[in-house]
Amino acid sequence: MTANTDEKTPLALLGLGAMGTALARAWLAAGHPVTVWNRTPSRAAALAAEGARAAESAAAAVEANTLVVTCLLDDASVEEALAGADLDGKDLVNLTTGTPGQARGRAAWAHGRGARYLDGGIMAVPPMVGVPEAGGYVFYSGPRDLFERHREVLGAPLGTEYVGEDAGFAALHDVALLSAMYGMFAGAAHAFALIRKEDIDPASLAPLLAGWLTALAPSVHQTAEQLRSGDYTKGVVSTLAMQVAGTPTFLDTAEQQGVSPELLTPYFALMRRRLAEGDGKEDLTGVVDLLAR
Amino acid sequence: MTANTDEKTPLALLGLGAMGTALARAWLAAGHPVTVWNRTPSRAAALAAEGARAAESAAAAVEANTLVVTCLLDDASVEEALAGADLDGKDLVNLTTGTPGQARGRAAWAHGRGARYLDGGIMAVPPMVGVPEAGGYVFYSGPRDLFERHREVLGAPLGTEYVGEDAGFAALHDVALLSAMYGMFAGAAHAFALIRKEDIDPASLAPLLAGWLTALAPSVHQTAEQLRSGDYTKGVVSTLAMQVAGTPTFLDTAEQQGVSPELLTPYFALMRRRLAEGDGKEDLTGVVDLLAR
Repeated sequence: MTANTDEKTPLALLGLGAMGTALARAWLAAGHPVTVWNRTPSRAAALAAEGARAAESAAAAVEANTLVVTCLLDDASVEEALAGADLDGKDLVNLTTGTPGQARGRAAWAHGRGARYLDGGIMAVPPMVGVPEAGGYVFYSGPRDLFERHREVLGAPLGTEYVGEDAGFAALHDVALLSAMYGMFAGAAHAFALIRKEDIDPASLAPLLAGWLTALAPSVHQTAEQLRSGDYTKGVVSTLAMQVAGTPTFLDTAEQQGVSPELLTPYFALMRRRLAEGDGKEDLTGVVDLLAR
Repeated sequence: MTANTDEKTPLALLGLGAMGTALARAWLAAGHPVTVWNRTPSRAAALAAEGARAAESAAAAVEANTLVVTCLLDDASVEEALAGADLDGKDLVNLTTGTPGQARGRAAWAHGRGARYLDGGIMAVPPMVGVPEAGGYVFYSGPRDLFERHREVLGAPLGTEYVGEDAGFAALHDVALLSAMYGMFAGAAHAFALIRKEDIDPASLAPLLAGWLTALAPSVHQTAEQLRSGDYTKGVVSTLAMQVAGTPTFLDTAEQQGVSPELLTPYFALMRRRLAEGDGKEDLTGVVDLLAR
């Protein structure tokens, strides 16, 4: 069997960093004709040897396709790359990392130039592209019919997760999950720091830590239900009052082990503020409201 | 079939808070004769109706058993409860939450009174006690032969995880995992705060967040290997330099969404410090060294 590439949606891909290159390869492997452009031409030439069409300019790449995907350094690079391109009638899918505000602004800018616009937030690193079992995916937001029209081609390199009509929602979901990741990394860094000067192998702590964090990750469902209902006492096992009472053990242990508590204290301070203002029988969910005031 | 309780190790249990009560019930259910004592006698009376022997004093509970388990409010409560008890020849297993330093001090105190000492750190909440499929367990540290002697009885209410001869190691592992948990909770709180004012259901974010955190939890194995080897560049996909360059997107998004960045900024500050001092091609593991200086 040979792939009939004529039946697959062709697309332009602007931006051949590590992620753009991985995306191009995945689309080529899936049989899509891909026109590539990169500010540094050598990267496009390398992909041309693998079957891509290398365009001489971003404008030329856009001209040859209806579906235009951007995966550039930042929002300013998108404006710069597309400055000389005719976007009228194009479907622009912007996978460049940015804020919800940048996505909304870029959507308005695209509409002003006659294009339809989908924003994407990539929840994967390049080695996960084209490897479905790695579980990587892309958040998409913008017009649902535009997403549905391109769902199949967009789904070739990574999974797809549509999160709403608001162009900013893909970036918002992306940033929300990555922010949560940094919190988890901060907690794990503190844990490893606590054992750093002891005769404890970090590789013996790791499986315990991984198992513990995995077991606790589903607790966000309870947080979500509490935020929805406004009842922060529902299903609580360890109350805010109990947990605030326990914080000295964490700070004293950090001091005993010679570890700075700076990654723990901001959250503990919010727990104490919420306890001072609210109900000690609550869960820790009230911290969300203190942050979002 | 009826359980032959005469063959099961008898024990004294001091402290009948929610956790102590759950432990007592699990030991009774497993057929162990349990002598209970609590500062507030009504709780002991309730358990007596379920088959426990209620002692009139902590000293009397200790006298009637070789194995003595304490599950009290804090380290000072252990000293207070056992002040009038003869500990000579006893095996004291202290499940009271505390710091590694308190555990080491309590071990020395117990030895001075003729007792052997195991410290325990409980990684479970009361509803998980006696429910093996819930996965709760207790870290134990102290003499390995003492742990082995009582492994079976200690394993009746919750799983057991022996972590070393140093009496402080159980508390250290306990605090390390719980500290990491607070980091994860802080990250999740920031994520929920980001969507708080948008038309996004927290219950639609929750499964994405839970899946993302679950997928990332095993990354602690790579951190551990890097700490072991001292090579923080091994296996890196997103470098420290790339991640520091990305931090403005997180801070700008927080500002756009009206969310305080206070739970993110301390970790970002450490990332920047490490980048300024070190190698941009590293992973984020160098943050551990900045904390543990």
